[in-house]
Amino acid sequence: MYDQILALLDEKKYSELKNLLSEMNEADIAAVLKELPQEKLPLLYRILPKELAAEVFVNMDSDAQEFLIRAFSDNELREVLDELYVDDAVDIIEEMPATVVKRILMHTDPEVRKSINEILQYPEDSAGSIMTIEYVDLKKYMTVEDAFTRIRRTGVDKETIYICYVTDENRKLLGIVTVKDLLLSEKNAKIFEIMDTNIISANTLEDKEIVAEKFRKYDLLALPVVDQENRLVGIVTIDDAMDVLQDENTEDIEKMAAITPTDKPYLKMSVFETWKKRFPWLLLLMVSATFTGKIITHFEDALQSYVVLTAFIPMLMDTGGNCGGQSSVTIIRGLSLGDITFRDTFHVIWKEFRVAFLCGVTLALVNFGKMLLIDRVGVMVAAVVCVTMVLTIILAKFIGCTLPILAKRLHFDPAVMASPFITTIVDALSLLIYFRVASMILGI
Amino acid sequence: MYDQILALLDEKKYSELKNLLSEMNEADIAAVLKELPQEKLPLLYRILPKELAAEVFVNMDSDAQEFLIRAFSDNELREVLDELYVDDAVDIIEEMPATVVKRILMHTDPEVRKSINEILQYPEDSAGSIMTIEYVDLKKYMTVEDAFTRIRRTGVDKETIYICYVTDENRKLLGIVTVKDLLLSEKNAKIFEIMDTNIISANTLEDKEIVAEKFRKYDLLALPVVDQENRLVGIVTIDDAMDVLQDENTEDIEKMAAITPTDKPYLKMSVFETWKKRFPWLLLLMVSATFTGKIITHFEDALQSYVVLTAFIPMLMDTGGNCGGQSSVTIIRGLSLGDITFRDTFHVIWKEFRVAFLCGVTLALVNFGKMLLIDRVGVMVAAVVCVTMVLTIILAKFIGCTLPILAKRLHFDPAVMASPFITTIVDALSLLIYFRVASMILGI
Repeated sequence: MYDQILALLDEKKYSELKNLLSEMNEADIAAVLKELPQEKLPLLYRILPKELAAEVFVNMDSDAQEFLIRAFSDNELREVLDELYVDDAVDIIEEMPATVVKRILMHTDPEVRKSINEILQYPEDSAGSIMTIEYVDLKKYMTVEDAFTRIRRTGVDKETIYICYVTDENRKLLGIVTVKDLLLSEKNAKIFEIMDTNIISANTLEDKEIVAEKFRKYDLLALPVVDQENRLVGIVTIDDAMDVLQDENTEDIEKMAAITPTDKPYLKMSVFETWKKRFPWLLLLMVSATFTGKIITHFEDALQSYVVLTAFIPMLMDTGGNCGGQSSVTIIRGLSLGDITFRDTFHVIWKEFRVAFLCGVTLALVNFGKMLLIDRVGVMVAAVVCVTMVLTIILAKFIGCTLPILAKRLHFDPAVMASPFITTIVDALSLLIYFRVASMILGI
Repeated sequence: MYDQILALLDEKKYSELKNLLSEMNEADIAAVLKELPQEKLPLLYRILPKELAAEVFVNMDSDAQEFLIRAFSDNELREVLDELYVDDAVDIIEEMPATVVKRILMHTDPEVRKSINEILQYPEDSAGSIMTIEYVDLKKYMTVEDAFTRIRRTGVDKETIYICYVTDENRKLLGIVTVKDLLLSEKNAKIFEIMDTNIISANTLEDKEIVAEKFRKYDLLALPVVDQENRLVGIVTIDDAMDVLQDENTEDIEKMAAITPTDKPYLKMSVFETWKKRFPWLLLLMVSATFTGKIITHFEDALQSYVVLTAFIPMLMDTGGNCGGQSSVTIIRGLSLGDITFRDTFHVIWKEFRVAFLCGVTLALVNFGKMLLIDRVGVMVAAVVCVTMVLTIILAKFIGCTLPILAKRLHFDPAVMASPFITTIVDALSLLIYFRVASMILGI
């Protein structure tokens, strides 16, 4: 597809190209434009039919958008801006340098500019920052027919028309009517008779992650956003909620891997930026690992007399880390999906204890056999390693399941309590257990 | 809320209870029922208005559903089943034991039963398995008015009416019309004039993860599912796509923590089931860690003469593992979001190399200072540790970024190539580097 478009462009077969592009989906065109040499962007963009062009524009990445905006004449810029939904305009503005923002705001019409500025003022992770102001509002004494007239008249510029919001003269939200309700009701039924007053809404300052979860829990297509006085100020639509959900998942995964989360795609980050997101955690973990080293130094004499013990340190530490990691990640995910709450703490600990015991004993048995038959160490040394293994696993799983819950309780992000941290803690503890067990069994 | 409901139930104030519940959302009622002692379930359920009852039923977990179905009379069962969408019925059936499934199928009407059986036959992760057959279909020569009549007549039982599908006499999909298009068109416009023929669809056998990604990429509310002959067999709605997305995220996270994924919530799994999901990976990793032990044994003599080197083994292994884990998780996520593709391999390697160099040098510098000032080891020992650190980090990040891409290329799941595996590999390699550097610098 890409080659075909490039060929048509090079051969200047613009009308053929226009026909081809008109048949394509905006997201696919944006994907092709992404591959194109930047200097060809404005030309190809101008070939697109006007409405499609704006849709493609929304789907492009911010570098390409910036390049295009700089290439646009004032008129072209105004045309694109007119076609944008306010929430998309805000998303774009948030990524642009100040000079471009200034130019964008100069060419949007004053009312939209006001809305953009309002949305820009909401905190970054709030419902307000992801909402749009383009919704259909109805009044309670309208008939179904009036409602359809209003939808037909104003609907073309709304992000969704399927969910309509009934407000009073003070913009207070009274109820919700879906187009399905409207279609299945009598023409002269009144809106207040058919509206649903059992409203699920979000506050402008509510965390966008919680907003996204509401979409999933209640199977919503759109969610009204109200201010502190319960006045309707905007709506969040499901496409944005889905993006939030995906971003939050990425953030959690990054935190679990000891990386400071970012919403920039990997390939867009500079080397220095990537380093900045990773280095502090590595440093913290490296320094923490010092304790483990200290423990080894402390038991140097014991190691000198039983050098064979050193060989099993990595295996014990890794197994402990892996066991703790499994528990912590399971619990972190359960917490974030709402499957596990603070009330379940003892239930979780008791379960992890039994799983740990089962894992510990089975792994230790395999290991015992392997040490005797393959490594050919003495029974006592094998016993030391295997007893340590069982105890380490139980401890690792206990720490792995309690730390995330504790973090959540203290209003920290549980995701930070994932494998890297658990591993560092478990490493030190497993060595302490190891040397203690060794001194008891081997008498050193 | 829960206490209030329980109190009303105990005081047998059923009509008050009914009023209270009628005002609540189905998902919230289901959440309350989950907390209730199971024997009270049927009573409370029977208090609910019929239509709400079915919606609540869909939102309950499978244990409660099973309990209720067993408590239902045949008539009650039939009533609930009549209200269910086919895809929800399939979801429920998939969780039930055979005897309950038999009873459910006996009481659904023959046509629905046929559809359920068809959907049950699609592979577990396919588009077919999550679709529903309740969509609005239109014919191309209908007028807009005809279309509205059809929607009004058949729409009440459809999962979505907002996207309608235009099919020919062989059920081949010709185009898509949204209710927005219909509302904004003239009454006597023909469907074929306004339908969108640029259709994004999925094949019945397509992976449901890819289907969910299409919703995100193209901002869809519903996606038509066609069979091999391009005949429309069902649609997937966005609520199901969102659930798939969230389930896939959970699966990826579990795989990254070396756990076999499952779609059962944590608290529902038995201890033995949990063990089965975790043990094989722990065993595999434990056995792999043997190599690390072998390396230590092999260099026993060197360690004997420089026991101080042992103390830094855990720190070097942990840092290597953390660095590799950061890279692998970043790349795995990038691959699964489509930000990174196979074509980017060299770009990724070059970037990770530079990041690794930066991380390695900065961490090594801090460590060098710390070793001289706090640990008070000799300059040469500090040099050994720090050179090893730089080399290990570069290697760890190289392995961390290439293995997931390689796995994807070989059609394995990249998520498996996360921290636990990378750590195990990096452990062994970091020791090899350590002893090699030590023998070069310290001459042992």
